[in-house]
Amino acid sequence: MNFKVTPWEVKGKIDYDKLMNEFGIKPLPKLPKQFEENHLFRRNIIFGQRDFSRIIDAINNKQKFVMMTGLMPSGKFHLGHKIVADQIILYQSLGAKIYLAVADIEAYNSRHPNMKELQETAIKEYLTNYIALGLKPKNCDFYFQSKRSKDAKKANAYYKLAGLFARHATFNEFRAIYGELSPGKIMASLYQASDMFHPQLEEFEGQTPTAVPVGADQDPHLRIARDLGTRMKLYNFIQLSSTYNKFIQGLRNDKMSSSDPTSYIALTDSIEEATKKVKKYAFSGGQPTIDEHRKKGGNPNIDVSYQLLKVFFEPDDKKLKKIHDDYKSGKLLTSELKSILIEKLTNFLKKHHENRRKAEKEVDKFLQN
Amino acid sequence: MNFKVTPWEVKGKIDYDKLMNEFGIKPLPKLPKQFEENHLFRRNIIFGQRDFSRIIDAINNKQKFVMMTGLMPSGKFHLGHKIVADQIILYQSLGAKIYLAVADIEAYNSRHPNMKELQETAIKEYLTNYIALGLKPKNCDFYFQSKRSKDAKKANAYYKLAGLFARHATFNEFRAIYGELSPGKIMASLYQASDMFHPQLEEFEGQTPTAVPVGADQDPHLRIARDLGTRMKLYNFIQLSSTYNKFIQGLRNDKMSSSDPTSYIALTDSIEEATKKVKKYAFSGGQPTIDEHRKKGGNPNIDVSYQLLKVFFEPDDKKLKKIHDDYKSGKLLTSELKSILIEKLTNFLKKHHENRRKAEKEVDKFLQN
Repeated sequence: MNFKVTPWEVKGKIDYDKLMNEFGIKPLPKLPKQFEENHLFRRNIIFGQRDFSRIIDAINNKQKFVMMTGLMPSGKFHLGHKIVADQIILYQSLGAKIYLAVADIEAYNSRHPNMKELQETAIKEYLTNYIALGLKPKNCDFYFQSKRSKDAKKANAYYKLAGLFARHATFNEFRAIYGELSPGKIMASLYQASDMFHPQLEEFEGQTPTAVPVGADQDPHLRIARDLGTRMKLYNFIQLSSTYNKFIQGLRNDKMSSSDPTSYIALTDSIEEATKKVKKYAFSGGQPTIDEHRKKGGNPNIDVSYQLLKVFFEPDDKKLKKIHDDYKSGKLLTSELKSILIEKLTNFLKKHHENRRKAEKEVDKFLQN
Repeated sequence: MNFKVTPWEVKGKIDYDKLMNEFGIKPLPKLPKQFEENHLFRRNIIFGQRDFSRIIDAINNKQKFVMMTGLMPSGKFHLGHKIVADQIILYQSLGAKIYLAVADIEAYNSRHPNMKELQETAIKEYLTNYIALGLKPKNCDFYFQSKRSKDAKKANAYYKLAGLFARHATFNEFRAIYGELSPGKIMASLYQASDMFHPQLEEFEGQTPTAVPVGADQDPHLRIARDLGTRMKLYNFIQLSSTYNKFIQGLRNDKMSSSDPTSYIALTDSIEEATKKVKKYAFSGGQPTIDEHRKKGGNPNIDVSYQLLKVFFEPDDKKLKKIHDDYKSGKLLTSELKSILIEKLTNFLKKHHENRRKAEKEVDKFLQN
């Protein structure tokens, strides 16, 4: 394959069919309307799943279920992170109990030695933006791997599970799935398995279907966790249900990376900054000259502005189709397409920055658990 | 070398000078009288140390210090375990705060899948015998690795430390020290490092000299923990002080092993059983016939009965020397030597079994922490 997808590296042009085939990810089944109403599912931006039918059943039967996902608290919270945030909020609206793990121990063990900074980033960047995007404190358990709970029974149970999972892991498996290994990576993987399965411990929810929405690069962690969960006979876990979203292109059509501010739009970027980034960096699928564009048309599939509209800012399928068709026919110019995005983005950021100010006051409620 | 000492295997005739040289263990320094009064130190049964002067200083200066040690809760508690128990009680009498870790996560990760059985063994075999031998609930923190504390702050802090240590460990180091590796062994090693250093966290005692008395086979864990403690800059740990005791010969002069009841005397053995084991199995340094014994004399250095008197049952140096000399000269026969041991052992077991009955009522106090 001429692309590479691991939790530590994503490169090349990703062929999602090949990826699904190699990883063993299944396409989405027929979804109930609550999911179809969400454009991420409807547009196949969330393109695959494992055992997701359990979550559909739970929703259809009005049974309890959990949504669990993790965040690596480094750098700015940008549009690449919003795709999971949008799903968290969707699941909360569908009645899921939300578990959000701040992978601060994992972050420390990879490359971020400053625990205080990690915790600040988790709160100021991630949690505050989640709340501003609509996350509610009710039914939400937001925690740090390094400080699981103020309830000792819960804390002990969570860490015990991570500790016991070690017995059921093998080097060969880690190596086959992760490639190069280190004690820190092994620890991270065992903590992640506990993050994903511990909601099912009796100290938490008990046996419960658990949805884990992730980017496709996180599937190796899921595969390890699934195997560990199966082998762990001390508990009777229900297997995890996971969904996979496609990667969001970086502004310049390469990787969206926290270490390069010209590759992303952060949710704390000012409207001016964001506008400037779109104008200056957003990779265009249009032709070099207006004449040529009118004649040959643009390519929306590689145009970053179009992609951002598709993934985040134009939930109306008809309107999106018109933009798509007009751009493809050459009727819509790149500058005009960018203007559409900028207007939508401006409205979003304006409202979001207001919401962030309100959210800052709510943060404490989330940290009370 | 024609002996092997690892945490998982001890075999061959151990040359302690070579062992100290290879491991980097130092001989005991001049000890204050509180230690000299204890025959384990005085007779060089505790033969080596690392950084033990810190503990001596703390005692001399009446400063706070900690004694931490762990136990693997498998099988019967036998004389091979009593040597560390005797030290625990010595340190408690010297004013140390005692930390006792039940390595149940480590046990699960090695070969003991039944967590309930592990916890029962820890309490019925280890803790009850410790109490019967004189351990007091005051200043004693007895805990399970799987359930660190009823205080959530303490629990979180302990596990966090184990999690963060992973960053500072390398495979090469693990491999060099442990040989063959597995995720379970790595986890065990990181938990052990947290066991040894966590008493110094602010949630526990704060920076404090910490004595770790262990068998010589446990030094690899100490070496890893010392390195991790040094590299961990988030905390300002005082380096560990450790002491090393010699191995107790098995009854038949091979390994004292929990899996072979003829190799040990358990502290719950009845007086009849224990007597029978000494008579039947205790390896003799005497000669094949009485005549020959009278003529050539016996070898107390390889005689198991003599060794048990030396390590456990005859604290009076003069009396021990007389037994030694009489046996060596041939004046004392093997059967007579065994009778001396049996009398001492009978007195000990009788009193100990009584103490165990009292201890059973005190167990709960220790589990309240």
